Amino acid sequence: MVDDAQQACFEAGIKFGSLYHQFAGTPVSPESTRSLERAMAEAIENQPHCRSVEVEIHDDRVTDAIDHENGYTELTGRLMDVDMEIRYEDVVVHTAMAMVDGYPLMELVSVES
Amino acid sequence: MVDDAQQACFEAGIKFGSLYHQFAGTPVSPESTRSLERAMAEAIENQPHCRSVEVEIHDDRVTDAIDHENGYTELTGRLMDVDMEIRYEDVVVHTAMAMVDGYPLMELVSVES
Amino acid sequence: MVDDAQQACFEAGIKFGSLYHQFAGTPVSPESTRSLERAMAEAIENQPHCRSVEVEIHDDRVTDAIDHENGYTELTGRLMDVDMEIRYEDVVVHTAMAMVDGYPLMELVSVES
Amino acid sequence: MVDDAQQACFEAGIKFGSLYHQFAGTPVSPESTRSLERAMAEAIENQPHCRSVEVEIHDDRVTDAIDHENGYTELTGRLMDVDMEIRYEDVVVHTAMAMVDGYPLMELVSVES
Repeated sequence: MVDDAQQACFEAGIKFGSLYHQFAGTPVSPESTRSLERAMAEAIENQPHCRSVEVEIHDDRVTDAIDHENGYTELTGRLMDVDMEIRYEDVVVHTAMAMVDGYPLMELVSVES
Repeated sequence: MVDDAQQACFEAGIKFGSLYHQFAGTPVSPESTRSLERAMAEAIENQPHCRSVEVEIHDDRVTDAIDHENGYTELTGRLMDVDMEIRYEDVVVHTAMAMVDGYPLMELVSVES
Repeated sequence: MVDDAQQACFEAGIKFGSLYHQFAGTPVSPESTRSLERAMAEAIENQPHCRSVEVEIHDDRVTDAIDHENGYTELTGRLMDVDMEIRYEDVVVHTAMAMVDGYPLMELVSVES
Repeated sequence: MVDDAQQACFEAGIKFGSLYHQFAGTPVSPESTRSLERAMAEAIENQPHCRSVEVEIHDDRVTDAIDHENGYTELTGRLMDVDMEIRYEDVVVHTAMAMVDGYPLMELVSVES
């Protein structure tokens, strides 16, 4: 009833939702982008079927988002790009989050057996 | 390259990861299970392609998990069952989280066109 | 070395940080504001020394924050007011979060014995 | 009505609640403890009045908490120690989280002017 490609896509979605809702809201400044990128990637790579996660938080967007007084902002999808590779049985799924038409979009890029 | 059923499964996974990592860790007691169930369901139903979400937090499991002094515990997958229906184009996906062999499992129950 | 009023203020801060970082990022629309308000209040009221929590999520601000396509936004401090009363021994602390000069501010309103 | 020491304790509590509820639930294994420790510390150090944050996630406790199949667990207060120094005006506050009688406790260690 459910084939391997569909299961792989479900697993890929879980990782994306997990990454986003675990870390959205984290206080971030240009001084902490590198450590947050790495922790996000390594945390989600712990999950089953997750082959690799790359997170890029854009320092310039973080700087632009910082309120004048605080010196930091909160992580949102608008500040980062994410690429993930999920493997379930013989199926490899690539997913990405990037800004599309001004909005952060989680995208299923490819499903390959 | 990506068909509607695969996209529907990806969307279903996103909702599951979102629900889990947004709300896991929330302080919960038998006095607050009903409001938390409802807020979780209504929050995730806001997301695109999400037709319905049902969350059942088991009062007896919450009671068993409460540390003697505190009077509350933190929400985990062991304390609840979740059922979701996602629709993407003509594809309907059912997913569920329940305890399997002592562990909470997110499961892709069916994919139907 | 630490007096009751200081301990009460520490407890009050914990509740505020907990409430904010547990629920910030939750998908919200005018259809789900009431259930989210209630779940937030009841969740934090479970914590020790917390006498009452009131959360008001402003429907008009949620509506203004919704991106044209999605139909929902993510909860931030800009969308809500929060009032809390913490009691530790004989000390009662009132705290509030509200918009001040365009920014959401967590404020220690009063400390009374 | 509110003195600097009380305000410092309130700020210290906010940081503790933020740290805990932002990061509790993060997937963690012995392979990802160092990056998560660092990201947690640097994230919270962004917040106002926060002078330093030290997080130690105990690899042995993580290993013990890992379910046999998964290879990872979710971060809780039982797996880590946290020390923080907050400064507000002339007041320095030290706080710590550690296991006390089998439970993780957030503690106000000292308040000094």
